[in-house]
Amino acid sequence: MSDLSKLELPETQSLILEHRGSVLKIWLNRPEAKNALSEEMTDELHLVLDAIRDDRSIRTIVLRGRGGVFCAGGDIKGFKSDMQAVSAAQVAKSNRSFGDLMIKINEQPQVVIMLVEGAAIGGGLGLACVADVTLVTVDARFRLSETSLGIPPAQIAPFVTERVGLTQARRLMLTGARFKGEEAVRLGIGHQVASDAADLDAQCDVILGHINACAPGANAVTKGILFESLRRPRAEALDFASQGFAQCMLSSEGLEGIAAFVEKRKPVWAEQSNDQLVGK
Amino acid sequence: MSDLSKLELPETQSLILEHRGSVLKIWLNRPEAKNALSEEMTDELHLVLDAIRDDRSIRTIVLRGRGGVFCAGGDIKGFKSDMQAVSAAQVAKSNRSFGDLMIKINEQPQVVIMLVEGAAIGGGLGLACVADVTLVTVDARFRLSETSLGIPPAQIAPFVTERVGLTQARRLMLTGARFKGEEAVRLGIGHQVASDAADLDAQCDVILGHINACAPGANAVTKGILFESLRRPRAEALDFASQGFAQCMLSSEGLEGIAAFVEKRKPVWAEQSNDQLVGK
Amino acid sequence: MSDLSKLELPETQSLILEHRGSVLKIWLNRPEAKNALSEEMTDELHLVLDAIRDDRSIRTIVLRGRGGVFCAGGDIKGFKSDMQAVSAAQVAKSNRSFGDLMIKINEQPQVVIMLVEGAAIGGGLGLACVADVTLVTVDARFRLSETSLGIPPAQIAPFVTERVGLTQARRLMLTGARFKGEEAVRLGIGHQVASDAADLDAQCDVILGHINACAPGANAVTKGILFESLRRPRAEALDFASQGFAQCMLSSEGLEGIAAFVEKRKPVWAEQSNDQLVGK
Repeated sequence: MSDLSKLELPETQSLILEHRGSVLKIWLNRPEAKNALSEEMTDELHLVLDAIRDDRSIRTIVLRGRGGVFCAGGDIKGFKSDMQAVSAAQVAKSNRSFGDLMIKINEQPQVVIMLVEGAAIGGGLGLACVADVTLVTVDARFRLSETSLGIPPAQIAPFVTERVGLTQARRLMLTGARFKGEEAVRLGIGHQVASDAADLDAQCDVILGHINACAPGANAVTKGILFESLRRPRAEALDFASQGFAQCMLSSEGLEGIAAFVEKRKPVWAEQSNDQLVGK
Repeated sequence: MSDLSKLELPETQSLILEHRGSVLKIWLNRPEAKNALSEEMTDELHLVLDAIRDDRSIRTIVLRGRGGVFCAGGDIKGFKSDMQAVSAAQVAKSNRSFGDLMIKINEQPQVVIMLVEGAAIGGGLGLACVADVTLVTVDARFRLSETSLGIPPAQIAPFVTERVGLTQARRLMLTGARFKGEEAVRLGIGHQVASDAADLDAQCDVILGHINACAPGANAVTKGILFESLRRPRAEALDFASQGFAQCMLSSEGLEGIAAFVEKRKPVWAEQSNDQLVGK
Repeated sequence: MSDLSKLELPETQSLILEHRGSVLKIWLNRPEAKNALSEEMTDELHLVLDAIRDDRSIRTIVLRGRGGVFCAGGDIKGFKSDMQAVSAAQVAKSNRSFGDLMIKINEQPQVVIMLVEGAAIGGGLGLACVADVTLVTVDARFRLSETSLGIPPAQIAPFVTERVGLTQARRLMLTGARFKGEEAVRLGIGHQVASDAADLDAQCDVILGHINACAPGANAVTKGILFESLRRPRAEALDFASQGFAQCMLSSEGLEGIAAFVEKRKPVWAEQSNDQLVGK
């Protein structure tokens, strides 16, 4: 195990960071604005994700909102000030920067879990679409509200479509349909429904236990393979995947994993107690 | 509001057009042939869609079949005459033209709703796969019957696959499986099941009300972003989306939408009464 | 009908081949290793698929595992010997060869049915993702166990993602979640749940009857169109599809299919009795 106390995390105002064992829990901390995505908040998310990107001692990131709400979307007041910007180019550039954050979260090497309660509206719904595991409460409210404001769900459109498929994405965007947790899971935005906030925690702990059985390095390589397989022609994607396979197989992790399998014991990465990895 | 009485629609024989408020309802009108897609019918669909393409006063197109049936597929008698054509090139060209209609409906800037009752077979099932919202009656019959006729579901294959995913598309095409409304929704061909024709109308009215809350220009830009996001590498798609965002944000629609949000009132485009927008 | 007795199949050790009528049944035959995919087994699968590739008298391939288990994945002992290989390049090359088999099964011109009972783990789960129709027993066990062994699910990642979508693929790979038959169908790995092995056979027979109604040549062309439509830009895919349409329409199969439709009789390819086509 690396010395976890060495982990250096940036100072943040809009986020609260909790680090325990292999889990970094990130709280969106603007409850007074229903955790709407301010520029400060997105900047700080960039900084935190960059800081831990190459640190395999952090195996899982759990993202959640303070105040019983996940994220109410973009910062409409920020939009309003955008409208006084002198040029369309400036508005476009400001909008585009959110897309970079979406890419970063989507492809972050750690496993990303999001816990959605209260509401996930507009950009908040988009955010829920880039987690590896998204747990939602049964009464959480979802809506792509952008077109009802006269604007398109621009930077989140590719990620929502990737998540739920074109068929449902077009309906949700063009009708602004409102729905709740069970429908969110049927659509594929979420993976599991929780009855309430406490159940969110309990289900999250079970999944952290499952992730604990998976090798951190192999998981990071797997995420890379997944996204390359969406981008590359099939044969090239398989070539890329075979490089990742060889890298893992010949690493100390792969040697340990196969040895543990043959010896019918747990590999070292799975021996950590739950106490060390649960982030709350 | 633009002067709606100015809308000029082409004369049609195979289609019946009903225009009220922001809705254009198009009836396939060959009930004696179960609305099989004749060359005349597809030509007229092209003309109508082109005529309203850039008219944002038309916000929604509702497509439905006369005689209690949606569409029984291609025109097999037309196929039979095809077979007497002198060359494979002519047969291919005739087939290919249907693909252009599929692209056009799929990417039409207006919201497209299809109401499916009776049957949606072969090309009719394909058609149901390019709507933004597809409502189906519980007893509507669906089947990709092409391979049982010795031909492939050629021009509809990419759209069916885009709609239901490869996994189900391959099964449906290679086994000619028959199914009904609830299965059509489970597969993702339809979005909602209606108990009968009257319920189709009632559910359609609810959705027209939702669409009424969404800005027409933002909806058109959103459809463009959706399809570009399927075609372009991710970063380019996000660049494209940011241009659409800036265009909408700085338009009178975007200014009105944000102002209405801040002032806690409905934007002008949502003030139209249902009477003005229901197309039937 | 071609003279079926002429069909020449390779000699196999790890596979048992049963040929009756238009069906070739392939049994994975390493029950002592839960049909783990040895090099011999994958080599033999290549040989068999190549031998029948262009033979339209074989309309369906049914793949199943001996000993009440489908396939427990890769050959971990083979992995272990891999680790003594001198170079990463050799490990990568060995891994990459499984991807070629996955491509071959996925795009085989015949309809491929897989009957999954017992377990489909790792590469076995991957295998279940490249069938046209996958039937699973309610108690069959599924898991992507790779990352718990310290390696990525490399060669199967693109196929699993194509099958179940990115959203579920990432969760399954990164958490090693365990699930059974009904969940496998909800995820889209399987198409139908069977209560037990006898029910697998019964459901398979029904589907063989459906396939019997579909023209063998049209089915083969349809599979080609499906995969090209995933690879090519839309307009090019439609061009390709129109060539396949013309080829089928002007073939003796297409002429027969349309004639049979107009004359309200079964086409010749559908007249075969079930006895001739059931492979067991």
